[in-house]
Amino acid sequence: MTIPTSIPSTGPWAVIHRNAISHNLSWLRQRLYHCSPGAPVRVWAVVKADAYGHGLTHTVPALQQADGLGVTTPDDVRRLRRQGWQKPILLLSASGVRAEEICDPSLGELHLVIDEPSQLDQLERLARLPESRRPTRLNTWLRYAGRLGNLGFDVTEYAPAFERLLALKTKGLVVEAGHLHHYAGAEDADALRAERNEFATVVGRLPGPFSTGNSAALCGSLPETLRQEGHWLRCGLMLYGASALPGTTGAQLGLRPAMSVHARLVAVRYLKAGQNVGYGDTFQAQRDTWVGTACIGYSHGVPRQLWEQGHALVGPSGRPVPYAGRVAMDCLSLDLGPNACEQVGDIVTLWGHAPNGAALPVETVAASCSTIAAELFTGLTSRLPLISA
Amino acid sequence: MTIPTSIPSTGPWAVIHRNAISHNLSWLRQRLYHCSPGAPVRVWAVVKADAYGHGLTHTVPALQQADGLGVTTPDDVRRLRRQGWQKPILLLSASGVRAEEICDPSLGELHLVIDEPSQLDQLERLARLPESRRPTRLNTWLRYAGRLGNLGFDVTEYAPAFERLLALKTKGLVVEAGHLHHYAGAEDADALRAERNEFATVVGRLPGPFSTGNSAALCGSLPETLRQEGHWLRCGLMLYGASALPGTTGAQLGLRPAMSVHARLVAVRYLKAGQNVGYGDTFQAQRDTWVGTACIGYSHGVPRQLWEQGHALVGPSGRPVPYAGRVAMDCLSLDLGPNACEQVGDIVTLWGHAPNGAALPVETVAASCSTIAAELFTGLTSRLPLISA
Repeated sequence: MTIPTSIPSTGPWAVIHRNAISHNLSWLRQRLYHCSPGAPVRVWAVVKADAYGHGLTHTVPALQQADGLGVTTPDDVRRLRRQGWQKPILLLSASGVRAEEICDPSLGELHLVIDEPSQLDQLERLARLPESRRPTRLNTWLRYAGRLGNLGFDVTEYAPAFERLLALKTKGLVVEAGHLHHYAGAEDADALRAERNEFATVVGRLPGPFSTGNSAALCGSLPETLRQEGHWLRCGLMLYGASALPGTTGAQLGLRPAMSVHARLVAVRYLKAGQNVGYGDTFQAQRDTWVGTACIGYSHGVPRQLWEQGHALVGPSGRPVPYAGRVAMDCLSLDLGPNACEQVGDIVTLWGHAPNGAALPVETVAASCSTIAAELFTGLTSRLPLISA
Repeated sequence: MTIPTSIPSTGPWAVIHRNAISHNLSWLRQRLYHCSPGAPVRVWAVVKADAYGHGLTHTVPALQQADGLGVTTPDDVRRLRRQGWQKPILLLSASGVRAEEICDPSLGELHLVIDEPSQLDQLERLARLPESRRPTRLNTWLRYAGRLGNLGFDVTEYAPAFERLLALKTKGLVVEAGHLHHYAGAEDADALRAERNEFATVVGRLPGPFSTGNSAALCGSLPETLRQEGHWLRCGLMLYGASALPGTTGAQLGLRPAMSVHARLVAVRYLKAGQNVGYGDTFQAQRDTWVGTACIGYSHGVPRQLWEQGHALVGPSGRPVPYAGRVAMDCLSLDLGPNACEQVGDIVTLWGHAPNGAALPVETVAASCSTIAAELFTGLTSRLPLISA
């Protein structure tokens, strides 16, 4: 792993490894090919939440082999078009988006997820407009609510809602109407199988392509239904090199972590046994020791409770060291031990890879503060600059 | 509380109430005056971390009565100068900042916190430069490490380090050298008294002004030492209307919350008893009920574990309702109950004030997910637009 030379001399930063992102997409392509060699399976690369916190500008260039990109806001669609993305874009969470926005021709080929009956009402109003004022390349995906249960249509609502989409297709408003499902428990093979079967039953013999997926499903047991032509799979977390499967890291699956988060030591102090560090006396030195402090904290998106069980990598060698006291707003401290040789200016790695390549999987860090990699990635704030490698 | 008319029709947003911020600063001024009517006490308003997540552009206009502003990066100093702030700026966490940056005359009257011996070495190098290349209005504050222990000088290091600053004053490099301390346990009156006494002992008869404070100390028991002329107090969290004292809200102290976080319902679904909502089956309806989903999630800075004990306000009336299942990346769900009358488009308030004025204190929300208001404020990401009211 190389650290770019343009890193800040003060302040923290995150390195985004573009090659890792393109590798992870290729990894998925190969896996899909082996599972379903005869049928083209298309891939939506999900780049919502600024590419899971990795930044659209850093990420999109690495996703040229995707068939489409998935986002959650019309602003993101426009941002992608400005970045030159010409292939389809899937607009998830489209409920609440005004019909006029959908008609904007600068959005290009738009695939709209239908989560809610009022969206169908809106589309039916659009279908009554003169052709010149209608969207030209609009595709729709009806969401089955399923076990996730928060958005979409349930088993009794699904077929009637789909009939309304088919009528809109007949009227020429929409190019295609497909079936979309998002799994609630894809980490568990049995739960996943049950969700897949339920969705297949609900869709039954209705025409149109399918879109399912999510990283846990794609990295776990791939389904038979992949063989169905025209299937559009959605992948998110795995593109960034993290595993959605509990107890497994992305690297163990063959993925490459795309993000490393770093800061520099701004102080190294010698503490006598019994001395405290941090707010509320959360750390007391059990022996004489060196404590290093780095200028990164919860205002950058590092969870405040990470200190309890977590560790970081320090120095050029990427030596693992425990936290010393609670993470503060702008800084955190590490127990470097009695024989520490680290100095002010040395690099600290919170997750990802240290300069010499030593790895601290984001999944390990997330587990140490009872969360998941996706929350760590997307929780980074604008105060943490992203730098491409 | 008024909600501005410019709020997004989709997507979440936060409202920043400028009047609340200026009120909170006045509240502190009055309190200081009552405690120490004879002596001018100056106030550093701390606006690090983009004004605790409230945005510098929204906050600085409300802080014109502060004597100075405190930040953590040279970039923030430049940003404040571009915004027209002409009074002093305190640069906390200045360790690691290069000497050349300090010399930039566009930084104006800069107060540098000295956390680390290498900063003294740098200043001594600057003092050997011709006068034309030196900073012109540089003030310094030596940090006592104290119980926080992460940055600064301990009891044996303090006086010799201060002598070096006094020598730099004699040489004309620095205008003034003062004494700075940050409390580790100001929430507890006894711990605070011990920290204050310790600091006073360490400083002893050394000349120069003091800077202490922090919101917990200023909202709790104010010290006798306030009477000392030239004391510069630092306040942060309380400016934004939140309390740093456990079990107390800002409103209970007389402060006004400056931030409200909102989203809109994008779906309202009827669930049968036994049906699930959210990833990993974290919620199962115990009775037939309405579940509303709002497009705000952990990618905006809402803690993923908030659902466990938290509640939100919903609709124009600000009715309190519990979460239904784990907070997801882009959305969260609420159990609206069997008799709900809320609709798609209705406003949800995560903390702050609902449109009709109903309050959900940020301290209550923070406690429900085992953190503090400052982490919620500064954890908001760039995907949550801030709107002034």
